[in-house]
Formats: sequence, structure tokens, C-alpha cells
Amino acid sequence: MFLKNSWYVFGWSDELKENEKLVGRVIIEMPVVVWRNPQGRLMAAEDRCPHRHAPLSFGRVEGDNIRCMYHGMAFNKNGECVDVPMVDKPPKCSIRMFPVIEKNDWIWVWMGDPKLADEAFIPDAWGVNDPNKAMRYNSIEYDAHYQLVHDNLCDLSHVDFVHEKTLRPATGAYWAETLPVVAPQSRAVRFERWFENAQMPSDASVKVDTWSTYEFVVPGIFILYGARFPAGTAKKCDYKAPSKDIKPIFENIEQQAVTPISATKTAYHYATGLIFPAKDVTKEIEARMDVVMKTFEEDRQIIEAQQKIWHLTDPSIKKQFLPQDQGPSIMRRLMDRLMKEE
Amino acid sequence: MFLKNSWYVFGWSDELKENEKLVGRVIIEMPVVVWRNPQGRLMAAEDRCPHRHAPLSFGRVEGDNIRCMYHGMAFNKNGECVDVPMVDKPPKCSIRMFPVIEKNDWIWVWMGDPKLADEAFIPDAWGVNDPNKAMRYNSIEYDAHYQLVHDNLCDLSHVDFVHEKTLRPATGAYWAETLPVVAPQSRAVRFERWFENAQMPSDASVKVDTWSTYEFVVPGIFILYGARFPAGTAKKCDYKAPSKDIKPIFENIEQQAVTPISATKTAYHYATGLIFPAKDVTKEIEARMDVVMKTFEEDRQIIEAQQKIWHLTDPSIKKQFLPQDQGPSIMRRLMDRLMKEE
Amino acid sequence: MFLKNSWYVFGWSDELKENEKLVGRVIIEMPVVVWRNPQGRLMAAEDRCPHRHAPLSFGRVEGDNIRCMYHGMAFNKNGECVDVPMVDKPPKCSIRMFPVIEKNDWIWVWMGDPKLADEAFIPDAWGVNDPNKAMRYNSIEYDAHYQLVHDNLCDLSHVDFVHEKTLRPATGAYWAETLPVVAPQSRAVRFERWFENAQMPSDASVKVDTWSTYEFVVPGIFILYGARFPAGTAKKCDYKAPSKDIKPIFENIEQQAVTPISATKTAYHYATGLIFPAKDVTKEIEARMDVVMKTFEEDRQIIEAQQKIWHLTDPSIKKQFLPQDQGPSIMRRLMDRLMKEE
Repeated sequence: MFLKNSWYVFGWSDELKENEKLVGRVIIEMPVVVWRNPQGRLMAAEDRCPHRHAPLSFGRVEGDNIRCMYHGMAFNKNGECVDVPMVDKPPKCSIRMFPVIEKNDWIWVWMGDPKLADEAFIPDAWGVNDPNKAMRYNSIEYDAHYQLVHDNLCDLSHVDFVHEKTLRPATGAYWAETLPVVAPQSRAVRFERWFENAQMPSDASVKVDTWSTYEFVVPGIFILYGARFPAGTAKKCDYKAPSKDIKPIFENIEQQAVTPISATKTAYHYATGLIFPAKDVTKEIEARMDVVMKTFEEDRQIIEAQQKIWHLTDPSIKKQFLPQDQGPSIMRRLMDRLMKEE
Repeated sequence: MFLKNSWYVFGWSDELKENEKLVGRVIIEMPVVVWRNPQGRLMAAEDRCPHRHAPLSFGRVEGDNIRCMYHGMAFNKNGECVDVPMVDKPPKCSIRMFPVIEKNDWIWVWMGDPKLADEAFIPDAWGVNDPNKAMRYNSIEYDAHYQLVHDNLCDLSHVDFVHEKTLRPATGAYWAETLPVVAPQSRAVRFERWFENAQMPSDASVKVDTWSTYEFVVPGIFILYGARFPAGTAKKCDYKAPSKDIKPIFENIEQQAVTPISATKTAYHYATGLIFPAKDVTKEIEARMDVVMKTFEEDRQIIEAQQKIWHLTDPSIKKQFLPQDQGPSIMRRLMDRLMKEE
Repeated sequence: MFLKNSWYVFGWSDELKENEKLVGRVIIEMPVVVWRNPQGRLMAAEDRCPHRHAPLSFGRVEGDNIRCMYHGMAFNKNGECVDVPMVDKPPKCSIRMFPVIEKNDWIWVWMGDPKLADEAFIPDAWGVNDPNKAMRYNSIEYDAHYQLVHDNLCDLSHVDFVHEKTLRPATGAYWAETLPVVAPQSRAVRFERWFENAQMPSDASVKVDTWSTYEFVVPGIFILYGARFPAGTAKKCDYKAPSKDIKPIFENIEQQAVTPISATKTAYHYATGLIFPAKDVTKEIEARMDVVMKTFEEDRQIIEAQQKIWHLTDPSIKKQFLPQDQGPSIMRRLMDRLMKEE
């Protein structure tokens, strides 16, 4: 079961730089084709011609129209059939168009009722092409149900175990020693905490307090912000969010999107970024991206192994609830509620 | 669902040149083994030993008998068990034999009731080994239901779109600008038309009229004949079939067989040939085969992509009928009727 | 359907030489992890953490405990949860522990009720690391149901056909010319026979009588012993088992374990050994292992081909019973009875 009334990340803006290039993908078991018209405007449609159900992503962009290159049916920007070879008056038929938006260098497609497509549902994020940030990005696929990826991202205590030698030391913090403050939002879960006396990744002898916060937003968008301050700052702030006039030593941002393909396959689009004020960070961001890629490979391996165990397990066997599961549990209930409402 | 009472193309004669060589394949979900006895006579049997259901294609030809090389059961040319190791009197059991015929350099197996196996059902075609023709052939497999391949072959308007840069220019004609005359036969559909003022493939400046006709015969045999004449011939013939005393500039033949393996896999055996009167055509046929191989790779790609869309599509979603669908529709109804009759 | 109350071969002792190394496998559709504690004692547990059903084989051995390296739950040697990060009192939950035994250089796991786990059910065999034997071993996987492998091993008449050019000449005997004496045991089938006037494998001009005997033990353990004597010995022994004071020219041993993974996948762990009294046999055992590996590749090919035919065959189609099937049939009935008793 999938949530329909939601913006899903189709991919990166950079994947659709070229006008008139058709890209076909499957989102929540629905084939979707996205392209830019000759003026660069984004378009998204059902990737299925009504004639013989061939994929339109094998087709051709002709101005504001898209033509199926199996037998030549063409559709305008509203999805209405406007041309069929040898037919004077094209039949009244159409393809479904999806609301599509480019934001934060991601391409977002609304998979549900177009009338409900509100751009405000798209969370704020950093664009990977923002010249003021040093960011790197990548996409991978999991042979697993998206729920397992959600669970993974809503309980970062796994960082100390799965990423013991990669992300854990790179963050300088211990993620399984304190619980974050978890706060349900209308379409998200928010996580906040201070890590006191963490190591400065670039210099283990320097101790820092790290303010770490992220939102996990429906239908699977992870937006993390971390800021390192001199040790003692957490206490000074009374363990609340640091005020904006305290300048961090440096900041990092993580931006990830979980897009279900099917019940056993999930796309994962992730980016990592660093903000060192007034400093060239090319070397640092390359090193960080190297760690992040290894980290998500570790996630992929344990999540796919977990999926195999799930396949072998009677679904009636209950799972053991732990305090760490507060985040995953809120998120699962939120998704369940939204899906039931549909 | 598959049609049983029909001749299916098992493969090319050349694949069974050698006597006593066993070749096992699956046709309409039934395992079939074909071989030649030591005198070269073709034999076809169920590829399943009655003992432990091991494949006889792993076996050995012994004169007119075939022996299972798992535990040694042997069967004569009528399929009767004639030998079991250590057993004085072999048990009364047998394997099913299939009628098998070699014709037009194809090997045909009758998959239904042997009493109904009439050689007259096999359509006339050109043999790929005919010394008077220049022919090339190949076999590929589709990860798709045979119906999608039938639809493809019964509506050649797709040539202008799928094969825009390969077969379309090679034929000199435009296939989506006129509809052929479609005529149902008892076990086939016949397509005929003139292309006026088409380009001569070997010289685009020369205009020709092309007489193009093909039959698509149950259970999936495509036999096409094309003949090019000086421009104006179509009108002179009153747009009817050219009489035999008008000599064409040259002729081409296409010969294809669709053999279902399972509901998701289909074998495809195709040949292309050219007839230039009194001229060596080695160079031309090589160039043509090159185009034809690219063409069927294009078909394979769009048909397999279409199959993936079908898998994702609720079967209750109707397809849009177009005038171009007359051929595919007649063929589907013919197949449906024959299957219902069984 | 699988037998649960039985010792299954998990693998070779040598695969778990190293202490604290976790090896996860699937036996009868149940994920199992096996390891040695820091003192080398074998442990076996369900390869599934009760928290999120992640595999413990991705975990870490900590003294007598095993820790899940997804979110850090730890379990003691009785399978009880003893530690959860940030949780003062771990929840009352546990993982299932399996009885595990090392014997004959194989690791055996009891997959059923631990109270019934009797070491006496493990058949005697030769250890592959026995310094007095020259043995070689290997493991492969079949894409087939274990029943097909059982059938194969309980009717060695197939040696003359499947292994016509490999194992048959290597044994010097003809396996499809005489039937063995087949004797059901409580949890095994025993096969015995003399091969008279067989060829001495190392010298075809020398004729020998070979005493050949094997047991096929629940749930799929094959233990064969062969001994070659001067021709005439069989008659002298009145075709009964040779007494222990008759020294054989040489002896061979075969030791194989069939471990079902799922209904379509089966692990196969096999060893071959030779005993030439007072002689270095390195060369001979290498040559023999070469033949044995080719032999089991032949078995794999025909059994996997047979499995494909079974998939295409209506299960209601009966198989033809032959006298050769006495062994397989007894074994199938024995397995059926034991499974029904559970």
C-alpha cells in the first residue's frame, strides 16, 4: 500500500538538464514519464499510451506535445489526444498528467488527486547546486520495501552499530547513548538533540557540542541540519536550540528522499553538504561524500538482508518495541493514517 | 492460454543438421525434444521421461529409439517403452510423440491432437537455404507474451515510428500514411496495399511503386512479399495485384515465426531475403540483414517495455481502438475463437 | 514441507575455524546463524533479532553474547536479551537457540524441538581432516527441491547413464546391471552389494570384487564405503559382507549431506576419500576429487533440468515406478512418515 496524495522525488534536476529528453521511471507502482518542453518547462505524465499501453518514455517531444513512438498517437500539455496517423479527428482520450515541480534541485511529482497538490507540502531543503554550499549527491536502489528504509532513517541509534567505522566517527558523536526529542508534526516527525563533548571530526582533540536536528517528512524526505559549537554551548543554551547569533564552527546538511518503486524496490536519492564559513571545502566534501557513500552501502546491505529475513518470517510474529522506536513508530502511524484517509 | 491444434515453428532446419543430436525446447509451456534418427528422419517427443520426469533431451539416440540418460529407460519411434535396465519386460508406458515436419527450412511441431495434424495448415514460404534466393536468418527471444508480438506484426504502421531510422528508410515507403486492405482468411489475416512513389532503397532519386502483401497465419507465422515496379505501375494495375507478366525491379521477402514459450517468454525466428533478377546480391543482403537485426532489436525493446507497463496496469483499463487496429483485432478474435473451439 | 526434528549439516568445521566469526545461512526456510564463542565453543541461533527482524549474522560476538549490529540488542548464550542501548532493564525477550554439534568435521544443527535432539541420530562418518585418510571436500547448491537430490542418491543405477564417462569408469563397476539389497532402518535406508569382476580403477587389466555399501540417513546424509578385493572374494564370502580379517586392496569413502534451503534451493556438502594402506595417495585423491567434482556437476545439471520439467508438469501426472525405485521410495515414505508424526 502506498500513499498517493503526496509529492514524491522523481530524481535530480541535473538528470533532466536537457530539454525534450524523456525519462521514464516507476513510482508507487505507477509508470511516470517526465520531460522538459522545448522552453524548459517540466511536464509529467503517466508513462502509458492509451492505445496499446506502450511507454511514452520511448516517445518524442514535439513542442508542447508528446508523441508515442509505437503507433504515433500525440497528446498535448493537458494530456488530450491531438493527433493519430491517418485519423482526421483524434478520438476523445487522454493521458493522465501529474503536477510536477522543481525545487531544491529535486524534481517532485504529485501522485494523487491534482486538486490537492499543494506546493507547501514540499519541505525546505538546500539545493545541491547552491553555489554557497559544498554538496555532493547520488542515487541508489534498495531491494526492499520503503518502510524498512523509513524505519532506518527515523532511528539514528543505528549509526553507532551499522556505521561504527564510517559515519559514526565522521560525526564525532555517539548516536545510541541519548535519545533525541521526537515531536510529531502534521506531515512529519521532528528530531532534535544536543551531543555534548563530541569530537571535532577534523581534529579529534577538539571537543565540540553538536546541535543535531532533522525532519522526516511524508512520504519519505529526510532533511538534517547539524551545527558544531565550542564545548559548553549546549549548557549555555539550556539544551534548547542555539540562537542564530551564535556562529557555529561549521555546519553540515543531509538531504535524502525515499521513493517507493514497488513493494520490494525503493529508490533513494541522497546528498551531503558542508558549510565552513569562508573556506574552500572541496577536499572536505570529497572526503565526506566518500564516507556517506560507504555509509549508505552499509545501510543497503543490512536493509536488504533484513528484507530477506522478513520474507522468511511469518508476519504474525510480533517485533519487540524499544524506546528507540518512538520515531519509526510515529512515522508508521502517520503514514497509516494518511493512507487510510485516502 | 495457448492454441494447441497448430503447427509451431520449433526452429531452423540448420539447427538440426546433425543426426542423433537432441534439442530440447519449451513450446506453449510444454517441453519438447526434437532430433533426427540415424537415417536423418525427424522425430519429436515430449521432453519428459515417464519414470522421474527427467528431460529426454539429456538422453541418447539409439537407432530408432531414444534412451533417457538418467536411469536408462528407452522408447521406440512410437513412444513406447522398449527397454529398462534389469527389467525383463518393460512396463506398459510411453512418451507422447508429436507430428513433426520439415518445410521451408523450418521445423514444425504439431502441439495438439495428432489426428488433426494437417500439413496443409503450414503456409508456403521461401526456404532460407533456397539457392535461388539470398536469405539470412536469426532467432531471438522476447520477455513478453506472444500476443504483444502478434499485435506488433499485424499493424505495420509502427514501422514509421519504432523503425523511423532503420526499416522505414530501408523500405522507401511510409507505413503510417495509408491503411492496407485487411482480409480475414480461415486461419490467417491477409494484408495488401500499394505504396505509390516510394523511394528505391538503393537510389533515393528513383521513384517506385511497391506492391506489399503479407499474411499473418495461425499460430504466428508472418510471410511478407514486396515487389518494386516503375512509378505509375500501381495506377496501371488499377491498384490491384500486379499481373505476373509485369516483371518487378526487385523483390523482397520476410518470413517470421512467433513461438510462445510461456506466458512471459516468446521465441522469434526471422529471415529476410532479396531477389534481384540475375545479379549477385551478397552485399545487398548483408546490408539488409544488418538493418533487419537492428529493427527487431527495436521491436524487442519496445515490446518488452510495453510488457512491463502491462504488468503494472489493471487489466480492466480498456485500450483505445484505432483504425490501425483492424489487423491485430481480427487476429486476436481468430485466435480466441480457435482456442475456444478446443 | 520439511522435517524439523533432525540434525542438518550446516557446513564444514573448516568454514568456522575462526572464533567469533558469524556465518548466516538458511536451512528449511529458517535463517540460522552459527559461530564460536571466544573459547571456540559452537553456538547456533535463529538469525533474526526480535527487535526489527534484522539478521544477527551481521552482528558481533561479545564473549558469550551476540549483539545485533542494527540497533544494539545483545543476547546471552541462552538466547535471552541482556542489553539494549539506553535501556536500564532489557525487555523480557529472547532469540531461539539451536542445539549444535561438531562431528566428523561437519557442523550439525538440530532444527526441531531441542528436547528431542539426540546426538545418536548423527551417523558415523569419516572426518575430512582425519590424518589417516586422504579426503577432499566441496559444497555446491542445487536450484532444485531436496527430494530430487534424495531420489538421485537412493538410486545409483544413474551412475551408468549420467556419469557414463566420469564416475562409472572411475568405480570400475556397472551400477545398472544389478540391484543392491535395500534394507530400511529406523531413520535410514541401507544399500549393500557385491560387484564381481569389476575393473581395478588404477589398472583396468586387474579384476576385483568390490563390496559396496551405503546408508542414506534422515534428513539427507549419504555415507558410502567401498572395498576392493581380489576377484573371487565375493563368492568366497558367500556374497555376504566380507569379514574384517580379509584385507581389501584399497577402500574408498564418500560422504555427502543434502541440506534444504527452500522448496527450490538445496545445499550439498560432499567429500571423497581413499584409503590405500601404507601408501602416499596425494596424486590419487586429487585425480579422484577431479572426477567427483565433474560427477556432481553432471548431477546438478540433470537435476536442475528435471526440476524445470517438474515446474512445467501437472503434479497429478503419475511417475512410472521401476524396481530401481525401491530405495528412493522407501526413503520418501520414511521422510513422509516422520514429517506426518511432527
